[in-house]
Amino acid sequence: MLKLPKTIERLIQELQKLPGIGRKSAERIAFYLLSASPEDARALTQAITQLKEKVHYCPQCFNITERELCDICSDTQRDMSRLCVVETVVDIMAIEKSGAYTGLYHCLQGRLSPLEGITHKDLRISELKKRVQASKELVEIIIATTTGVEGEATATYLAEQLKPFGKKITRIGLGLPSGGSLEFADALTLRKALESRQPL
Amino acid sequence: MLKLPKTIERLIQELQKLPGIGRKSAERIAFYLLSASPEDARALTQAITQLKEKVHYCPQCFNITERELCDICSDTQRDMSRLCVVETVVDIMAIEKSGAYTGLYHCLQGRLSPLEGITHKDLRISELKKRVQASKELVEIIIATTTGVEGEATATYLAEQLKPFGKKITRIGLGLPSGGSLEFADALTLRKALESRQPL
Repeated sequence: MLKLPKTIERLIQELQKLPGIGRKSAERIAFYLLSASPEDARALTQAITQLKEKVHYCPQCFNITERELCDICSDTQRDMSRLCVVETVVDIMAIEKSGAYTGLYHCLQGRLSPLEGITHKDLRISELKKRVQASKELVEIIIATTTGVEGEATATYLAEQLKPFGKKITRIGLGLPSGGSLEFADALTLRKALESRQPL
Repeated sequence: MLKLPKTIERLIQELQKLPGIGRKSAERIAFYLLSASPEDARALTQAITQLKEKVHYCPQCFNITERELCDICSDTQRDMSRLCVVETVVDIMAIEKSGAYTGLYHCLQGRLSPLEGITHKDLRISELKKRVQASKELVEIIIATTTGVEGEATATYLAEQLKPFGKKITRIGLGLPSGGSLEFADALTLRKALESRQPL
């Protein structure tokens, strides 16, 4: 059997560490890079290097930023009375895209997961507590962790931890997605949708 | 809407140029790299840089190699009387994996595709002709381009171009794949399978 040259094999190994990239995809990308122009390959490696050099986490909310504070924390137009707690930076982007929220965020950088060995110490919970304690304007903390078992456990844990600060604590609404039919909704979603029914 | 920091947006753009990577996958990989250790990120960029520096195409068969000639061309144990013409380096690997072939290869680096503007000048056909002309040991040329319309057109074109050299020219067998049932075979495969029937 033909062995690949060492350098291409090493690249395939490195590419396989990326999320969603298996052996076949890694081979395809490696062969593409082999035939790509030197400029294209350099543009990619430089983009990775610059990412690691320039982008860091906002020390207040743990969103990503190239500046001292992130764009949201440094925006004085935002509603300082509301704080939305999410798991990842991608969740912040999703909520911002909706345009339905103008408050601040706090990114936990994960969720409690005993199976993966992720405990409260691995998340930005102590920073969240300090922040809640220090803020005078804060009225409401909206817990917007994901709706699976781990996300729910994280939400419950946070609610307990944040109760002593005397702020209003809410959970993001759970129910049928917009455009979703009852036929295709799973049992848990239907149960939550019935529990969170509203008077018309 | 929250805009991503420029450096992460630039990386996402570069990642989207890779085969099989769309916007969502590119975002996932970019965020993974953001949270990856500096060593992991550097291992990836170095692997890409080294690939571009060290790996090149074999000047004889256009397989990839880190040496002057590729492993197959420089292996004196191979059967010099047979030459298998394929479209890509990945095809060479697939045939080598099968262990069913011990001859030499010639990689065209593509196939004729009028739609993509790929003509005979973009493929390694003139190099193939020179090679066939120069070789005294060569007895048979096996055309193993892919079995779609473009691969077939390439095979027909090659057969015409190589006829003047007076070597035996064959096409790799077309028919039902091993383990394939007639029920799920497409019409073209069945037609080819019937045409290439063998006496038992």
